[in-house]
Amino acid sequence: MLGSRKKYIVNGSSGIKAQIQFADQKQEFNKRPTKIGRRSLSRSISQSSTDSYSSAASYTDSSDDETSPRDKQQKNSKGSSDFCVKNIKQAEFGRREIEIAEQEMPALMALRKRAQGEKPLAGAKIVGCTHITAQTAVLMETLGALGAQCRWAACNIYSTLNEVAAALAESGFPVFAWKGESEDDFWWCIDRCVNVEGWQPNMILDDGGDLTHWIYKKYPNMFKKIKGIVEESVTGVHRLYQLSKAGKLCVPAMNVNDSVTKQKFDNLYCCRESILDGLKRTTDMMFGGKQVVVCGYGEVGKGCCAALKAMGSIVYVTEIDPICALQACMDGFRLVKLNEVIRQVDIVITCTGNKNVVTREHLDRMKNSCIVCNMGHSNTEIDVASLRTPELTWERVRSQVDHVIWPDGKRIVLLAEGRLLNLSCSTVPTFVLSITATTQALALIELYNAPEGRYKQDVYLLPKKMDEYVASLHLPTFDAHLTELTDEQAKYLGLNKNGPFKPNYYRY
Amino acid sequence: MLGSRKKYIVNGSSGIKAQIQFADQKQEFNKRPTKIGRRSLSRSISQSSTDSYSSAASYTDSSDDETSPRDKQQKNSKGSSDFCVKNIKQAEFGRREIEIAEQEMPALMALRKRAQGEKPLAGAKIVGCTHITAQTAVLMETLGALGAQCRWAACNIYSTLNEVAAALAESGFPVFAWKGESEDDFWWCIDRCVNVEGWQPNMILDDGGDLTHWIYKKYPNMFKKIKGIVEESVTGVHRLYQLSKAGKLCVPAMNVNDSVTKQKFDNLYCCRESILDGLKRTTDMMFGGKQVVVCGYGEVGKGCCAALKAMGSIVYVTEIDPICALQACMDGFRLVKLNEVIRQVDIVITCTGNKNVVTREHLDRMKNSCIVCNMGHSNTEIDVASLRTPELTWERVRSQVDHVIWPDGKRIVLLAEGRLLNLSCSTVPTFVLSITATTQALALIELYNAPEGRYKQDVYLLPKKMDEYVASLHLPTFDAHLTELTDEQAKYLGLNKNGPFKPNYYRY
Amino acid sequence: MLGSRKKYIVNGSSGIKAQIQFADQKQEFNKRPTKIGRRSLSRSISQSSTDSYSSAASYTDSSDDETSPRDKQQKNSKGSSDFCVKNIKQAEFGRREIEIAEQEMPALMALRKRAQGEKPLAGAKIVGCTHITAQTAVLMETLGALGAQCRWAACNIYSTLNEVAAALAESGFPVFAWKGESEDDFWWCIDRCVNVEGWQPNMILDDGGDLTHWIYKKYPNMFKKIKGIVEESVTGVHRLYQLSKAGKLCVPAMNVNDSVTKQKFDNLYCCRESILDGLKRTTDMMFGGKQVVVCGYGEVGKGCCAALKAMGSIVYVTEIDPICALQACMDGFRLVKLNEVIRQVDIVITCTGNKNVVTREHLDRMKNSCIVCNMGHSNTEIDVASLRTPELTWERVRSQVDHVIWPDGKRIVLLAEGRLLNLSCSTVPTFVLSITATTQALALIELYNAPEGRYKQDVYLLPKKMDEYVASLHLPTFDAHLTELTDEQAKYLGLNKNGPFKPNYYRY
Amino acid sequence: MLGSRKKYIVNGSSGIKAQIQFADQKQEFNKRPTKIGRRSLSRSISQSSTDSYSSAASYTDSSDDETSPRDKQQKNSKGSSDFCVKNIKQAEFGRREIEIAEQEMPALMALRKRAQGEKPLAGAKIVGCTHITAQTAVLMETLGALGAQCRWAACNIYSTLNEVAAALAESGFPVFAWKGESEDDFWWCIDRCVNVEGWQPNMILDDGGDLTHWIYKKYPNMFKKIKGIVEESVTGVHRLYQLSKAGKLCVPAMNVNDSVTKQKFDNLYCCRESILDGLKRTTDMMFGGKQVVVCGYGEVGKGCCAALKAMGSIVYVTEIDPICALQACMDGFRLVKLNEVIRQVDIVITCTGNKNVVTREHLDRMKNSCIVCNMGHSNTEIDVASLRTPELTWERVRSQVDHVIWPDGKRIVLLAEGRLLNLSCSTVPTFVLSITATTQALALIELYNAPEGRYKQDVYLLPKKMDEYVASLHLPTFDAHLTELTDEQAKYLGLNKNGPFKPNYYRY
Repeated sequence: MLGSRKKYIVNGSSGIKAQIQFADQKQEFNKRPTKIGRRSLSRSISQSSTDSYSSAASYTDSSDDETSPRDKQQKNSKGSSDFCVKNIKQAEFGRREIEIAEQEMPALMALRKRAQGEKPLAGAKIVGCTHITAQTAVLMETLGALGAQCRWAACNIYSTLNEVAAALAESGFPVFAWKGESEDDFWWCIDRCVNVEGWQPNMILDDGGDLTHWIYKKYPNMFKKIKGIVEESVTGVHRLYQLSKAGKLCVPAMNVNDSVTKQKFDNLYCCRESILDGLKRTTDMMFGGKQVVVCGYGEVGKGCCAALKAMGSIVYVTEIDPICALQACMDGFRLVKLNEVIRQVDIVITCTGNKNVVTREHLDRMKNSCIVCNMGHSNTEIDVASLRTPELTWERVRSQVDHVIWPDGKRIVLLAEGRLLNLSCSTVPTFVLSITATTQALALIELYNAPEGRYKQDVYLLPKKMDEYVASLHLPTFDAHLTELTDEQAKYLGLNKNGPFKPNYYRY
Repeated sequence: MLGSRKKYIVNGSSGIKAQIQFADQKQEFNKRPTKIGRRSLSRSISQSSTDSYSSAASYTDSSDDETSPRDKQQKNSKGSSDFCVKNIKQAEFGRREIEIAEQEMPALMALRKRAQGEKPLAGAKIVGCTHITAQTAVLMETLGALGAQCRWAACNIYSTLNEVAAALAESGFPVFAWKGESEDDFWWCIDRCVNVEGWQPNMILDDGGDLTHWIYKKYPNMFKKIKGIVEESVTGVHRLYQLSKAGKLCVPAMNVNDSVTKQKFDNLYCCRESILDGLKRTTDMMFGGKQVVVCGYGEVGKGCCAALKAMGSIVYVTEIDPICALQACMDGFRLVKLNEVIRQVDIVITCTGNKNVVTREHLDRMKNSCIVCNMGHSNTEIDVASLRTPELTWERVRSQVDHVIWPDGKRIVLLAEGRLLNLSCSTVPTFVLSITATTQALALIELYNAPEGRYKQDVYLLPKKMDEYVASLHLPTFDAHLTELTDEQAKYLGLNKNGPFKPNYYRY
Repeated sequence: MLGSRKKYIVNGSSGIKAQIQFADQKQEFNKRPTKIGRRSLSRSISQSSTDSYSSAASYTDSSDDETSPRDKQQKNSKGSSDFCVKNIKQAEFGRREIEIAEQEMPALMALRKRAQGEKPLAGAKIVGCTHITAQTAVLMETLGALGAQCRWAACNIYSTLNEVAAALAESGFPVFAWKGESEDDFWWCIDRCVNVEGWQPNMILDDGGDLTHWIYKKYPNMFKKIKGIVEESVTGVHRLYQLSKAGKLCVPAMNVNDSVTKQKFDNLYCCRESILDGLKRTTDMMFGGKQVVVCGYGEVGKGCCAALKAMGSIVYVTEIDPICALQACMDGFRLVKLNEVIRQVDIVITCTGNKNVVTREHLDRMKNSCIVCNMGHSNTEIDVASLRTPELTWERVRSQVDHVIWPDGKRIVLLAEGRLLNLSCSTVPTFVLSITATTQALALIELYNAPEGRYKQDVYLLPKKMDEYVASLHLPTFDAHLTELTDEQAKYLGLNKNGPFKPNYYRY
Repeated sequence: MLGSRKKYIVNGSSGIKAQIQFADQKQEFNKRPTKIGRRSLSRSISQSSTDSYSSAASYTDSSDDETSPRDKQQKNSKGSSDFCVKNIKQAEFGRREIEIAEQEMPALMALRKRAQGEKPLAGAKIVGCTHITAQTAVLMETLGALGAQCRWAACNIYSTLNEVAAALAESGFPVFAWKGESEDDFWWCIDRCVNVEGWQPNMILDDGGDLTHWIYKKYPNMFKKIKGIVEESVTGVHRLYQLSKAGKLCVPAMNVNDSVTKQKFDNLYCCRESILDGLKRTTDMMFGGKQVVVCGYGEVGKGCCAALKAMGSIVYVTEIDPICALQACMDGFRLVKLNEVIRQVDIVITCTGNKNVVTREHLDRMKNSCIVCNMGHSNTEIDVASLRTPELTWERVRSQVDHVIWPDGKRIVLLAEGRLLNLSCSTVPTFVLSITATTQALALIELYNAPEGRYKQDVYLLPKKMDEYVASLHLPTFDAHLTELTDEQAKYLGLNKNGPFKPNYYRY
């Protein structure tokens, strides 16, 4: 969705309108936006990080070729031209990126190995629309190894790594994507994935819902052969629930956004690290002794608070929910109203999923050099618009860092203009992407192989057993050794030895 | 249930049989015994602590009166004799204990204050069967202040604090309980609460299900007037679910055992402290540098691990569930099989809810002076029975501490004979009891005032809003200031400004 | 010194006077009393803990023998009567205590093993005056194994474990000590150690300086043969420095109080654990969410703060020294003046070594139920005397716990009447005592074997190399494996491969 | 010194030789190189960070002017041409950098304020040779405000920020420095500072000893008027001690490298943050669950271990010193030999100050993707040279990140080619630089104002009272409120109310 939004914003007013409408609808549907957008954000993070840090970016930049890929004639080394990428000659660079990613995605590699005997996706024809990065490439090639045929487009006009797309095309994957597509290009690419002579998809892997939307709109008959949709983003999941509610969902869909493993990694564990990373990269500040207020004590807030406390900051928390508030107390944080500490803190971090948590009034009262940033949701939490007034001077001091200067000389350090700090100023570890990609692969396998009737035309969560399986595939990374139940113990607990081990309501 | 079990075990073979049968049934019903028994355990803990530490115990001990309370004629200062306690003259001592407890149970005191205007329990006739401690007394007197009439018996033959019972009797509460009841006394006391001329209960507050059981068996007609049952223990809740399943539950029941606040406090937060306390009081050991293996990484295991790591121990974790295992990894613990580390660790702690997690084979391989204890469930986790063999010598070195000595001189330090360490060797803070008592009071109010039809003849969880209310009543203890949503924010989030703030599946 | 104080206080006005004078002199001499008294305190702690917890106490208590040991005729099984203990028949019980202690004092056991070839104390005649506990017994028997002859008295009239003394007497050690000596007994016992036909000491091991004092006063000629004094307590060390300053010290003396290992263990690491232990045993409070102010951020304060922060308390610090203050900031604690937080905190802990840090004015402003205790120095930090006024009511609620009640009903919970919490309400782990005992043994070996001229008539610190050796002897407890320098590395660093590894000013 | 080394290495073989010789001499002199170079390193860090991250770098880069500053005619706006910088027109950009730095160096600003009444450096003529950064500019302008005249050169041929130099020149400071000086330029600049008509320095502020060396060599007579030298770097301090030892030091010198505050901040507190920062910026790795071995548990190692443990890594420690080893144990780290864990760890971090701690043999045994980096000393700790063999392939994947690839495909991730990670890949917070600069300023004031005879021709540490003063000037940053002793307390402790508060041997 973040991807979608960017796209629309860039490409014209109608797009913006659509996005705004959508935001409204979303509120009606999903009452807990705290976690909204986090997942697909991290995909974007990954992309953004690649832009700034990985060597890959440079290959792309150096190709000063202005010709649109749609106007080029390209063939891969096997003679195929069923793809459309920036420059097929970058394939070798992309392959290296993919190989590096493979080393950090052991779960997918394990799936490939286990699939040598059986091909659980034999016969599957998957059309995909996701960010196109080295990690996605590992996923796609894993799906291939499991027996599937794939066609792929990008879910974001900016996020494609051209050399990775080239490597995939060179390996025979029909990929239609490049960095810097126009909106027209965007839909053209999706259409090229779907609208093929003699090939019809029977599975959809979507990130944001655009692909699903396109098929609904243009090729509704295709759904007769489609066995299911796997959707990763909050936005896409939201759209699916709406379709389901309206009775218009005509195939089963799997919501992979809300699995435990994914949620914990995207929020608690990932933010515990990225808050430090984002603040350091932008400000080089010292954490020790700093006073920080963290607004919101959900998973994201818990991660931020734990990390900053560990680094010697003094952390205050604001909350609206008394249960989370009590947790903050027991974890050793003073629970305050923002007003109580706003004059004294060195850093303000928002993680609420709410809007206007930090208002102009708060900003007016902050002390000189106070850093303000958002780890929560979209760009609504800090009322940045309120700072666009004539008496305040904005000074861009670094990329993603603005000093907003009051008439009396007071400066506020605003990071990423109030957008997500971890999206803009830090990276998401491959390990987190690995968990997501593995979950997607398993969801595809589950839907594709499910016996008739197990799934109806509704939106499902991944079965807990599969959640547990994703986790188990990632344990070798830590050289972690799981204990197995004895028969006697399994009987005593009333559990199957292979899980699932917990009831659905278990809180972890 | 632990209370119940003790009782049965003490009082004859039929009781033991009943208990064993029950354990089997339980396994079928409840697949997650990890948390089984924790709640009512802490009640017992409270009692046990009182025995050893508080001055109260001494009053009791000093009364060398051997006469059964049932044979005594006692009156309180107002002339009433509708009670049966050990010695009404101890009332003053008990009152002091109650006053001290009141200072640490601000939530109940707040309920009393709010109830000055309205009496939400006016007309309620509550019959209760719980441990009778100072904290319970604060609960009872709060129920009285809210408008209820109460009659009370003990749910455990050992746990009554005689002077508290006396203080309640002196204040006019019909209390039937003393420390050291026989099984016959036990049921006699319950009967005296229920079987009264001109008074019939319309609410039940039970801890273990014995009271409910008695009414079902002896006075089934009473259920016609009863508006609901509030049950606190795992065992009692289990019995209610069985009744419900069998279609025999004839009034609504509230399961207060599984509310978030209660679970987090009884398990994570409480065990984080009691593991240290229990180990210190029994062994005076130093935590720094010790190697510890914690079996199980549920809430209890998480609490134990966090505390020991913070004190400088090196902690290993064993798990059967790959999701909890991955959490252990991310939290910085090596995940091992018990066999891998059993030779090297200084302490073994079980928190699994399983049986025979530590076997004789493990015990044989432990190093000299290794400490073994159980924080998890009942007394099944360590196979203590396997240590009762002729070649091993048992030496009791302190209360709750045995040295088991191998022929070669190796000693294992076994705590509490494998029963719960925190039950036997540490205390439960009043703050935790306050959360439970407040939850019970709110559950009674909810059931008593619920409009016709809101609750059917089934077992319910406390509505999330009430969970949140319990939490909010405990925030003032920490001088914690909750933030309130603005109208605009509430609308944006689609929430009511007063909660509930989270969906039911939220994991906290 | 604490021992001495108790003794004097008990035994009459002249003693009290002496003690007060001494306190004054001490201030002049030693400008940094923060750490004063900590070491010998922990010896007393050990004793106090034994009283309350170990089974040993009961043997003693059960012997209702009122006859003074001085009036008894006792022989051990070998026919010797060169000892004076309470009851030689308790030897077996004491032996068990010693055996248990041996298991936790691996460093001394290692010294014994290494001594099988050589006897570094062959010919040594050591007269000792320390607390007589199982740990001391392990030290004495180690000295014996190293070749020394020993005669021993108690340094405290209360701290002797009678059954341990009996076990030592049974093994042939001339021990003169029992629990509950009169002051006259005390000096008589010391004299019996020193004043022997045909035996003259050549080494002194003292704890508090009383033995040294007695020899100075009564047998000054003995110093001709004495090779050195090893002194453990702050008080004794102070006396030695005074002698040295006055030019009256006639043999070398070793101050074992100030070695790094001992200091870190007695203060930082030990207090990190004992603050939690002491608070739990006395109050059963929950740490999570509590607001605590710790006065003083030296080693003791650092330990207390780290532990409480880890348990979820919110900790404030007061300091007078800007460097320690800056450390507190960087470690994540708000640095405040006591007045700023006195109204809001739940616990006040003093660790300053100063006097009147908590005044009546502070106590008047504390909130209801605030807990006040001292981890620092003597009983001067909290102005307890100021609470002995008519309008305040004192209520003893448990051993070591007083409620002081204001006219308006406010209660302050005062622990140990302002004396050291860890002395009175927690125990000291054997591991810490092991470090001390090993240091004493090595100091004796060093002084006894030092070539003429290495030590003059002055007070010395243990050479760093010996400090390092004490540490190395305790590493096996943790299965810790030290790395050895290669020749090349040692040369590069300019170090001897066997140490010492750091300059004297290194801060650790 | 690091600066010096770079310089020599770049500029020819004689330089290299000099440097090597120097390293040898150093070893003889300074036996504890663990902390060698840390301080001045952080200066370089600051510079390196500026290069990569701050906007300042771009101004410099954009000036494609190839003319040597020595060949240019430049005047500032007041008509002065007594300076030599890259481009005086960049002054405005530099001024902005200085203003930002001023906001984070409150201690110097406080010194300026206090100096409004008195000018403690009135009459001082200071010649300086340091890195020329915004922070140095704040120091220089503070010295000016305190009454001093200053002339300045750079101590490193690369580290000058041209726009800052321009801003200083514009303000009237005779500055002779630019980025990218030749060695000849370097000495020319120094000479221009010293060799001036009608102006002779009476104070020296040096970083590395080159300025001092130049004056010794060229203008030895100047020392007659010089009141003292303030030296910051390990290398420079070493040179001074050598001079002193040789009896050739002809003025007092102040070693500001070894003050407590500086050491703790440069090592423990700064590395606690920079280890995380450096690893993230280079590898984007996730810390949670990773196994890490940290070689060396000095201040740097302690900082690294604490940070990684807090982020959920599992940390092993190697040590040669048993005391530090015991600390590691008590802090909760397994103490191992490197060989024991080398096959299993994900990250190897060296902090020993030693050489060849990580050998080719270790590198051969590491697992695939293992990250290797150095936080300790120079580039000696990892035997990087051993990796320059034909069978290994080096692949530069990012700036400062090399993959070294074994024939079987195994990759080691080597950071900064074994040079200091925090030097190369993270930044040093202004707060740390502020502590150093304040210490320098106070040392200048002390030496300049010291009464005749207080300091002889020797090397001195800053008096503890000044250390405390530096700390106290930085407390306001944390809104920290120091407690003051009452008269009574000061008397009791035998302390002056204004400090110093601790004896010289205090360990903090």
